[in-house]
Amino acid sequence: MLADLAEGDPVPAERELAVQFGVARETVRQALHELLVAGRIERRGRGTVVSRPKLTQPLGLQSYTEGALAVGRTPGRLAVTTEVFAATTELAAGLAIPVGAPVLHLERVLLADDQRIGLESTYLSSDRFGSLATTFDPTTSLYAAIRATGVQFGSATERIETALASPREADLLESTTAMPMLLLNRRSLDSDGVPIELVRALYRGDRIAFETVLT
Amino acid sequence: MLADLAEGDPVPAERELAVQFGVARETVRQALHELLVAGRIERRGRGTVVSRPKLTQPLGLQSYTEGALAVGRTPGRLAVTTEVFAATTELAAGLAIPVGAPVLHLERVLLADDQRIGLESTYLSSDRFGSLATTFDPTTSLYAAIRATGVQFGSATERIETALASPREADLLESTTAMPMLLLNRRSLDSDGVPIELVRALYRGDRIAFETVLT
Repeated sequence: MLADLAEGDPVPAERELAVQFGVARETVRQALHELLVAGRIERRGRGTVVSRPKLTQPLGLQSYTEGALAVGRTPGRLAVTTEVFAATTELAAGLAIPVGAPVLHLERVLLADDQRIGLESTYLSSDRFGSLATTFDPTTSLYAAIRATGVQFGSATERIETALASPREADLLESTTAMPMLLLNRRSLDSDGVPIELVRALYRGDRIAFETVLT
Repeated sequence: MLADLAEGDPVPAERELAVQFGVARETVRQALHELLVAGRIERRGRGTVVSRPKLTQPLGLQSYTEGALAVGRTPGRLAVTTEVFAATTELAAGLAIPVGAPVLHLERVLLADDQRIGLESTYLSSDRFGSLATTFDPTTSLYAAIRATGVQFGSATERIETALASPREADLLESTTAMPMLLLNRRSLDSDGVPIELVRALYRGDRIAFETVLT
């Protein structure tokens, strides 16, 4: 159905497609919905157009920035939240710090070529990385800033699953609460096995895919 | 909201929850929908109950069978389709065989403890693995059967993204076309770098999460 169309081309109206393919409008509607969720088409203004291909990110220790650059997309970030609060039981366990110790929370929208791709929350021990609250420019790479403090990334555990965005998250991602999202939870350790960060990243399912090579 | 409930416990009705938490029914409905998609609750008969925790599968070269066993779940499979057809351009490129050469397609529902978790289509060169069409029991591990032919798995590329099930796929997964799914596409090579299989697996997003350790 999209074979002859290029990125940005308008998609014909439901009625028109139903006539063209000789099928029921309900069938066309279901097909268009699948293409929307698959990121093949997107709403623009009052119409629907063919989307840019999904951003394919390698699953690996490299940062979002490096991953986007590797596939020829321009990474960007919008600062949403910078705050310090007392560690909950869960954050304390994940970061290996005492319950109630200060945690630095950085929340940013991840961009690729000015498209909103994901919403990332990073939690760091404020005693260890608190200086970033004032020195770090949240529109730049956090991993570069962490490495600049002399910390080396050693290993990370990453969990991937589906989720729906809350109304607030959907707004920040310019998406909807019905759009399937990919939820990544990551825990990174330094080369001595000490936790660096906990990350909760929600990615628009219609704009990203992850790829990994297994050996 | 679920803190005091155990697996299989009934979830109170919307109206009851709205009164208990002093919020609008629409808010309760949205929260229950998020819990449903997150796999925390599920419909059973006319009611809603607390779900079993998601199956966490390692991303790796091991098979579904080995992954399920590793987390203490009993893997199973239901045979859906066994067929041989002529390779399309895409399958031919992926399997490094001529266009039109015979391809063996095995389609199975993946089970964990009798729950339907995923729908897996495996495509193999029939010239190389055609004997499996008659000798392989599709309710057992395909990787074990492939290894038994003397083939060693070398590496694989895996792509993970979200998708919606078609009506047919939703039926086979006892789910709906609205439930977010995880779509995995895998290409496995043997230890000589020759393609073994192309796999397209659709997993119920409410029943599975993938985990990987990055170094």
